[in-house]
Amino acid sequence: MNQYAIGVDLGGTNLRAAAIDTTGKIIEQIEGPTDGVDGSEAVLQRIGAAIDQLRDTHGRASLLGIGVGVPGFIHMEKGLITDSPNLPSMKNYPMRDLLSELVDAPVILENDANAAALGEKWMGAGRQVNDMMLLTLGTGVGGGVILNGRIWHGFMGMGGEIGHITVNPTGNPCGCGNVGCLEKHASATAVRAMADMLFPGENLDPKQLNDLASSGNEKAKLIFERMGEALGIAIATLSQIFNAPLYVLSGGVLPAWNHFAPKMISEVQRRSFNFRHCGAGNQIVPATLGGSAGLYGAAFLPMVGRNLAS
Amino acid sequence: MNQYAIGVDLGGTNLRAAAIDTTGKIIEQIEGPTDGVDGSEAVLQRIGAAIDQLRDTHGRASLLGIGVGVPGFIHMEKGLITDSPNLPSMKNYPMRDLLSELVDAPVILENDANAAALGEKWMGAGRQVNDMMLLTLGTGVGGGVILNGRIWHGFMGMGGEIGHITVNPTGNPCGCGNVGCLEKHASATAVRAMADMLFPGENLDPKQLNDLASSGNEKAKLIFERMGEALGIAIATLSQIFNAPLYVLSGGVLPAWNHFAPKMISEVQRRSFNFRHCGAGNQIVPATLGGSAGLYGAAFLPMVGRNLAS
Repeated sequence: MNQYAIGVDLGGTNLRAAAIDTTGKIIEQIEGPTDGVDGSEAVLQRIGAAIDQLRDTHGRASLLGIGVGVPGFIHMEKGLITDSPNLPSMKNYPMRDLLSELVDAPVILENDANAAALGEKWMGAGRQVNDMMLLTLGTGVGGGVILNGRIWHGFMGMGGEIGHITVNPTGNPCGCGNVGCLEKHASATAVRAMADMLFPGENLDPKQLNDLASSGNEKAKLIFERMGEALGIAIATLSQIFNAPLYVLSGGVLPAWNHFAPKMISEVQRRSFNFRHCGAGNQIVPATLGGSAGLYGAAFLPMVGRNLAS
Repeated sequence: MNQYAIGVDLGGTNLRAAAIDTTGKIIEQIEGPTDGVDGSEAVLQRIGAAIDQLRDTHGRASLLGIGVGVPGFIHMEKGLITDSPNLPSMKNYPMRDLLSELVDAPVILENDANAAALGEKWMGAGRQVNDMMLLTLGTGVGGGVILNGRIWHGFMGMGGEIGHITVNPTGNPCGCGNVGCLEKHASATAVRAMADMLFPGENLDPKQLNDLASSGNEKAKLIFERMGEALGIAIATLSQIFNAPLYVLSGGVLPAWNHFAPKMISEVQRRSFNFRHCGAGNQIVPATLGGSAGLYGAAFLPMVGRNLAS
């Protein structure tokens, strides 16, 4: 039997786990509620039960290890979840060692956006490249930086926070303390906020707004143009710094691609001579793994071994 | 005798070369005019003569190799200077192979800002870290990104162009085609341009402006504050992306540190939660090698071997 790893995607709402073999084939996937309100110990037990269930079916001998994608900050060396806005009980929580002891197998923790980036590199849009950046356009904007095929962590594990780079020095206020963060101009939340300004009282979501833009509504189109501009500024910055061949977008706003991408691409062209110079050699593309990218990336962690961390 | 390498710093005006041993000690340094107007062949011969002179004194057997820092874009694999604004005769010029043949020794080319960053990492402000970014505040703003102790090139050798990231989406126009590039708000040229607006007809240079600011002149202080703000936005972006422990500044505007650094640091604190979180673990500091950083870095190239290039 092929060797496999177990990837766990610990979401604020749902807990997913999959046994994935070394060729990237999902052998089995299971899912259940996270129920984070029950506290960290209960969540830990649920993760352990999911791992046990997959391992009972697929065998202990051929299990390479376990990777867990977590919506929060990770202290890589200590294996701590230092902070997780969606799982408030997990502040400075030593998840790696507790889970490893519980299931008696090696565990690697990773930030969920980083795991998604690694998943897209392994089996998704980034299969052909060694360097890429992922931006996940959801409630916030998550980011992951892949260099030489591995996640870039930075010296304290906080690298790749692309959602919180400044795209407008006098832009919208952000909970992080900055103003003009990318995620306050290009996330689903930002799109909703712009919709509330232009369509007061209608409470439109990105999907409805996308339909409106597709039917020719100028206000809806303007919102996605502004979003595309913010993305373009951020990706131009990445291009100037990294000169990477690939920039990948994922998340709930992706279906509006046709409405935000033209402005995004023209901004990158204008603002990054690296991007212009490399022509077809560098691209901005939609992700291909959808919501499963984090699961693939989490499972890949024990396969790729310890990631780059300086 | 200790092994040594020869570093060449090919400036638009001056050509410098030094024999530097593996401990980072400059054994001998020589200097002369570049006289780029004489054309690429004449410049090549001058570089060759400088190398011969150093090698004749210090021996062929213990020479590890030759590194050349060039003010322009390098095609790393092909060893071409693709474009150099300060040496227009060197468009798509195969400097590496021509020089290697001329002096019968291995040659590595590198962009001058990258070489300076590597020099500061090796023997300067970055000796204690593996990851750092250098910003050189001169006529333009040069950038170099060091990851895991090596220069980050990107897939086409154009990485690290920090001077041309957008710090203000509606800022000053830049020759690169963008508006609001860092170098149009934080270089010596940008400082001069602001001085021309506030002190019309006085033609003040950064040194005179620094003296004015030191004597309490509010307009001069305002100029350096604006410069600091732009630098702060850019360094905050680097901190969010790389989470590096060190950001190093060099160049002709550095003596005005006391006037631009306070605003720069407060902007980084406000705009980068990574920087705030890491506290004293990450720093922004002046370079320590001055104009010699590029010479050190060029000499280090044959010692560190082939640099990271994906």
